[in-house]
Amino acid sequence: MISSEPTVEQLVKGVRAGDRVMLSRAITLIESHSPQHERMGQDVLQQLLPHSGKAWRIGITGAPGVGKSTFIEAFGCHVIQQGKSVAVLAIDPSSKISGGSILGDKTRMENLSRQERAFIRPSPSGDTVGGVARHTREAMLLCEAAGFDVILVESIGVGQSEVALRSMVDFFLLLLLPGAGDELQGIKRGIIEMADDILINKADGDNKARAAQARLQQEASLACLQPATTGWKTQAAVCSALTGEGIPRVWQRIEKFHAELEPKGVIAQRRQEQAADWLSDLIRDGLQRRFDQNPRVQADLPTLRESVRRGEITAVAAAQRLLADFDRR
Amino acid sequence: MISSEPTVEQLVKGVRAGDRVMLSRAITLIESHSPQHERMGQDVLQQLLPHSGKAWRIGITGAPGVGKSTFIEAFGCHVIQQGKSVAVLAIDPSSKISGGSILGDKTRMENLSRQERAFIRPSPSGDTVGGVARHTREAMLLCEAAGFDVILVESIGVGQSEVALRSMVDFFLLLLLPGAGDELQGIKRGIIEMADDILINKADGDNKARAAQARLQQEASLACLQPATTGWKTQAAVCSALTGEGIPRVWQRIEKFHAELEPKGVIAQRRQEQAADWLSDLIRDGLQRRFDQNPRVQADLPTLRESVRRGEITAVAAAQRLLADFDRR
Repeated sequence: MISSEPTVEQLVKGVRAGDRVMLSRAITLIESHSPQHERMGQDVLQQLLPHSGKAWRIGITGAPGVGKSTFIEAFGCHVIQQGKSVAVLAIDPSSKISGGSILGDKTRMENLSRQERAFIRPSPSGDTVGGVARHTREAMLLCEAAGFDVILVESIGVGQSEVALRSMVDFFLLLLLPGAGDELQGIKRGIIEMADDILINKADGDNKARAAQARLQQEASLACLQPATTGWKTQAAVCSALTGEGIPRVWQRIEKFHAELEPKGVIAQRRQEQAADWLSDLIRDGLQRRFDQNPRVQADLPTLRESVRRGEITAVAAAQRLLADFDRR
Repeated sequence: MISSEPTVEQLVKGVRAGDRVMLSRAITLIESHSPQHERMGQDVLQQLLPHSGKAWRIGITGAPGVGKSTFIEAFGCHVIQQGKSVAVLAIDPSSKISGGSILGDKTRMENLSRQERAFIRPSPSGDTVGGVARHTREAMLLCEAAGFDVILVESIGVGQSEVALRSMVDFFLLLLLPGAGDELQGIKRGIIEMADDILINKADGDNKARAAQARLQQEASLACLQPATTGWKTQAAVCSALTGEGIPRVWQRIEKFHAELEPKGVIAQRRQEQAADWLSDLIRDGLQRRFDQNPRVQADLPTLRESVRRGEITAVAAAQRLLADFDRR
C-alpha cells in the first residue's frame, strides 16, 4: 500500500465527518477490482453500517434523451434549497466508450455540483448489473453514513436496470417525454407499474400541450394498474427542468410519501425485503459465475445449448450433463 | 426391475403407436423419484424426441373456482369434434392433501375422459415448480410423440405458476370470473399481459350481464398493454362451459393464431427461446439446490440472512461468507 493512502480508520472517521474526499475514496475502494482494496472497502463499510439507513432513497429512471441529468440538477438544487443535503449516484454514460470515468460532475449537473450540500458520484457504466452500477447499493450506504439526507440514484434506463434500481430505493420516479408512445420511449412492460410517480418532462414551449395530453394518457394507464407501493397512489404530472415548473411538486410528493408510509412501517419493511432479496441475488450471481467459469462447462455449454434449441436433446438431459461437469471440479 | 415392467424399447414403440398405457407408464418413469426409473424415462424421451414438437401447445390458467376443469372438458370435447386428438396435462389439486394422485379423470372431466381421442393425465401437485408439475414439459413431449394434435396444460393458478406455464406453451388462455375485480380473483400483476386470449367464464344465467361488463373492462385494460405475442392482438370474450356459448370461438382463435403466426416463424422462434430458457432455469435450480443442501451453508444461512435484514452486515459480506462455505465443499 502506498503510504499516502488513508487507513480504514481514517476513512471511517473521514466519512462520518462528511469529508467528501474520504467518501470518494471509500467508494473507489468498494468499486476496486483489486481484492485487497475491495476488502478494505468492505471493512470501512462494515464499520459505517450502523450509521447508515437514515436517508431517503430515490430512484430516477427514463429512456436516454428524456433529460434525466437536467432534471436531477434542477430537482437536486430545489431539495438543497429546502435545507437538505443531496448525494447523487449517477451512471456515467461516457465511460464505457472512453474507458475511463472522467465526465460526470464537470459537464453534467454544473449548478448542482457547485452546491456545498451536494455530492455527485458518477460510476463507470461498464461495471454494471443491468444498467445500475454493481456497487451502487454500497455507495448509497456510505453516503448515508456521511450524513446525506437524500440519495438520488439514476439508472441509464435500458433493459433490466429499472428492476435493479427499484429494488434499492424507497421512491421510484419515472421520467417520460411528451407525446411519444411507450414503445417509442423504450419503456418496457411493467416499468410503469413500478413507479411511485410519473413525470412528463420537457413540458415547456411547444411541448406544453403534448405533455398535458401525455399526462392524461398515463393517468388512464395507471387506472388499470395496481400501485407500486401499498397504500400509495401513483400519479402522472408534467414538469420542466428548464422553467422549473412541477419541480417543487415532486419534492412535496416525496415528503408526503414518507410522512404517510413511514409511520405504517411500509418503508422499513420494504428495505428489509430489499436487503434479503439482494442477498439472494448475490448468491445466485455468485453460483452462476462459478458455473460459467468452469472450464468443463465452458467446453460443453455452446454445443449442448444449440442441441436443446434444435430439439435434439431435452433441456433436462443437457442440464444434467452440465451440472455433472460442474460437480467434477 | 420387476419382469412385468416394459423395457425402454417397448415403451418407445408403444408410445409411438399411441398406446395410452405405455404413454402413462413413460410419464410415470419421468416423474419417478427413483434415479434408475428417471434415467429409463430420459432414455425413452431421448428416443422419442425426434417425433415430438408437432402439437399445438395451449396453456390454461385462472384462479381456483373459475371453472378450469369444466372449461377444459367442454373445450376438449369441442376440439375432438373438430377431428383432433387432445391430451390434457392437469394438476391434481387433491393429491397434496391425500398424498396420492387418484382423482383426475374419475371425478373431473367425465365426458372428456370417455372420448377415444382424449388422454387425461393428472400430475401430483406436491411435486411442482410454482404450480406447474416439474415434469410437465417432458410429459408434453411424450404426448406429442404419441401423436396428439393438441396439448392442453392446466396450472393451478397461484403464485408463479402462470410464468412457468407461459414459458412452455404456444398459446396462453386466461379464465376470469364475471364481476370480480382483478385483485379479488387473485390475478397477479402481469398475468393479463401474458395472455393471448382472455375468457370471462360462467357467462350464463344471472351472470350474463356481469360477464359482458367484465369483458368491456378487460378490453379497456388490454388497450393499455403490449401484446403477449408479437403480431397477435389479445382479445377478451365471454364463454360458458355450461351452455357451450363462446367455446367454438376459442378454437377459431387458436386456429387463426397458428394460421397467421406459424408462416412467420413466430411460434418456432418462441419454442427455441423457451427451450434455451428452460435449460438456463434448470441450471440455476440445480446450482441453487447444491447450495441449499450444503451443510456449511445450512449452518450459516439463517443467522446471516437475519443480520442482513436487520442491517447489521451488508448482503455483500454475507454472500461472500456463504459462497466461501460453498467453495469449501
